[in-house]
Amino acid sequence: MASMAQIKASNPVARDAAIGEIRALIGERLSTAGAVREQHGKGEAYHHSIPPDAVAFAESTEEVAAIVKICARHRLAVVPFGTGTSLEGHTAALHGGICIDLSRMNRILAVNAEDLDVRVQPGVTRKQLNDHLRDTGLFFPIDPGADASLGGMTATRASGTNAVRYGTMRENVLSLEVVLADGRVIRTARRARKSSAGYDLTRLFVGSEGTLGVITEVTLRLYGIPEASSVAMCSFATVKGAVDTTIATIQAGVPVARIELADGVQMGAIARYSKLDLAAVPTLWLEFHGTEASVAEQAGMVQAIAADNGGENFQWTTDAAERKRIWQARHDAAYAAKALRPGCQVWATDVCVPISRLADCIVETQKDLESTHLPAPIVGHVGDGNFHLSFVLDPTKPEEIAEANRINDRLVARALAMEGTCTGEHGVGYGKIDYLDDEHGDAVSVMRTLKKAIDPDNIMNPGKIVRV
Amino acid sequence: MASMAQIKASNPVARDAAIGEIRALIGERLSTAGAVREQHGKGEAYHHSIPPDAVAFAESTEEVAAIVKICARHRLAVVPFGTGTSLEGHTAALHGGICIDLSRMNRILAVNAEDLDVRVQPGVTRKQLNDHLRDTGLFFPIDPGADASLGGMTATRASGTNAVRYGTMRENVLSLEVVLADGRVIRTARRARKSSAGYDLTRLFVGSEGTLGVITEVTLRLYGIPEASSVAMCSFATVKGAVDTTIATIQAGVPVARIELADGVQMGAIARYSKLDLAAVPTLWLEFHGTEASVAEQAGMVQAIAADNGGENFQWTTDAAERKRIWQARHDAAYAAKALRPGCQVWATDVCVPISRLADCIVETQKDLESTHLPAPIVGHVGDGNFHLSFVLDPTKPEEIAEANRINDRLVARALAMEGTCTGEHGVGYGKIDYLDDEHGDAVSVMRTLKKAIDPDNIMNPGKIVRV
Repeated sequence: MASMAQIKASNPVARDAAIGEIRALIGERLSTAGAVREQHGKGEAYHHSIPPDAVAFAESTEEVAAIVKICARHRLAVVPFGTGTSLEGHTAALHGGICIDLSRMNRILAVNAEDLDVRVQPGVTRKQLNDHLRDTGLFFPIDPGADASLGGMTATRASGTNAVRYGTMRENVLSLEVVLADGRVIRTARRARKSSAGYDLTRLFVGSEGTLGVITEVTLRLYGIPEASSVAMCSFATVKGAVDTTIATIQAGVPVARIELADGVQMGAIARYSKLDLAAVPTLWLEFHGTEASVAEQAGMVQAIAADNGGENFQWTTDAAERKRIWQARHDAAYAAKALRPGCQVWATDVCVPISRLADCIVETQKDLESTHLPAPIVGHVGDGNFHLSFVLDPTKPEEIAEANRINDRLVARALAMEGTCTGEHGVGYGKIDYLDDEHGDAVSVMRTLKKAIDPDNIMNPGKIVRV
Repeated sequence: MASMAQIKASNPVARDAAIGEIRALIGERLSTAGAVREQHGKGEAYHHSIPPDAVAFAESTEEVAAIVKICARHRLAVVPFGTGTSLEGHTAALHGGICIDLSRMNRILAVNAEDLDVRVQPGVTRKQLNDHLRDTGLFFPIDPGADASLGGMTATRASGTNAVRYGTMRENVLSLEVVLADGRVIRTARRARKSSAGYDLTRLFVGSEGTLGVITEVTLRLYGIPEASSVAMCSFATVKGAVDTTIATIQAGVPVARIELADGVQMGAIARYSKLDLAAVPTLWLEFHGTEASVAEQAGMVQAIAADNGGENFQWTTDAAERKRIWQARHDAAYAAKALRPGCQVWATDVCVPISRLADCIVETQKDLESTHLPAPIVGHVGDGNFHLSFVLDPTKPEEIAEANRINDRLVARALAMEGTCTGEHGVGYGKIDYLDDEHGDAVSVMRTLKKAIDPDNIMNPGKIVRV
């Protein structure tokens, strides 16, 4: 089952001493106000706030290092915070301690257009980066939905709709600057596009959720904005038809930039919310990047593949306004889900399976949902085998959370039985910590060994990923 | 400077006891014959052989685990061995011990065509895999030149000519089975295409060169064989013209599959060796994958870009025989280099820099080469900023090795000053171990921490990557 938080208050003497020292360092940029602490103790999911003892708004790597050193001396927990858009309780201060808010470290430090890379501070958000890049002809493709900070996206190994073409944060981080648990500052790699010079520290910190150190700089890969884009949409009688279309598209080597799926429940919700004439059946959206000729050819190839797999009403366009209209329905998915039960919240699950098992996994899950009264539309990054149930629930009702947990437990077990993972892109936090043994077996002990070696006093975001 | 091996013999009592126990386990598949030991103590570079005490030809994960357990009990070193084609002394038994030869673990365990992945034993070579896949319409793109084992390619984070499009082993390994230093067997990840479920153990073992465990299974990404390929070749008056063409090509989003550079010295050598009418000037080879229309369009776009950057004699073709003829010149590069001094060996350096610095790095290196009598043609995977000098030297002459070392030291220092790496794809072994401090600074201490945590008795390929 989804984990209960194992909460442990910080030592009050250590806490007060550390707060005094940090206040001497950064003055009023250390806050102990209730509202500020409350806001920093949760993300965007159902997890309630577990506030830190104080929030430090850091403005430089040196400040982060100094704060971590103070916390290390007092054995006080450190929880890094970006935009607070994570979904598995990553920012909950389970052991109290100091939250380091990195949102003021939001400078873009160097755009290297010829090298297609950029170095940013961790508080820069993905939209901020893309706005900044607009005149360069370059863009950063990873889009997890929320306008998350790039430090946070790195820490959770985020991905989203573009991953099928451009990869996840795993593939797109070139190098990191990290403050370790003892306050030392390291750089994990040079700016070369590839290297075989030792252990891949970059990838060790990507997805480490603040448990091994605080990310204070990120160097990212960039891409040329494609000359042309085309967008397509197509409906199917069955999920299997949509998934088979996806498989055939990828096998045919069509370099699809996005391929998104919604199930019938989700499509019905979108049609109602957006007042669109959409059939409540499984639907694919696709996006193609390339030259004018190439995006037309790609759309044509997929149209033929979709027809072979029962696709109907295939429409595609290169027109900017039309593209926006087609994508709007997909973008409305979360709002449409929420509108199914006004006043409720959406809690999104996140499994990922080999694509050959995806249709089965979704269909079995849909059967499971027949036994619950909670609405739970499905959207998926189908090219990667990744999908989300959006439970629309009342977070003040424990029985609804328990019901969502019950179904999620079964969903994770189903995904694991299909050689999948308990989280494709949201991360572990403490919400998924109890699934890791089932997923990784003895490999979890290696993760624990790494955590203990790099953070021997367990001060870095304790209680997340692995318990020690 | 390139490192001297720090050799330490194994304890004879431990050695004899372990050999006895392993012989009881695998019988005549344990060899102590001088020729076998000698052959397993070196790779393909100038490094002389440093033989292990014995070579165990393992046939299963269980055998590898049992052998490692025996070695762990006797604190004897373990050196994994694939095809012996590594280039920085990776397989030298610096502390003696048992070499585990994995070449008999060469079964292809599962091809999942719909998921575009394959699970193999570590002794499967890349050509063997691609022969096996031929009828499936799929292929595995990573091509480091040698027909290396996939376990070895994983261990050294290999790449080669296709990396600019398809990535390196870092991007193409989905999951590993690994025997740890205490004989436990773990799987680093599920078969899902992406996951945020904990630390990225897969990437920790990719590039770990046997120092953290023995890789006993590899799950790899596959790709659809493109419908069409086109190949182009173009010469330039300057290295800068060739590199600028590469930069503009990548910025324009042309999804080039290969883009290779040879300098004038290398082209002169190829012309002489292959009796071809080739100008001794910087030359690019390119390959494009896609549909018939797309590969023609890509070649046309690059032709225009090359013309803007002083490219001459641009030729391109989709004809299979012509493609082979054009690539042959590139494939002859190593033989052509060797033919410059009959009886000598080629020793290849391997730096990688941000592509904006590549032309400068090559030109400064060429200037450096004016002061030596050693021929040293240059070839490069220019799309990644990675290039090799091929010193043609007599390995029996210490002064020639010293001269190559001197120039290589300067080359590495130059690459590091340009934010590059001391090795783009060959790895560290013991040949580059002394460069890591300059490259990574304090991050090397984190690598050492990881090594000590995962292999506390330092039995896994000791003396490679980091000394402990």
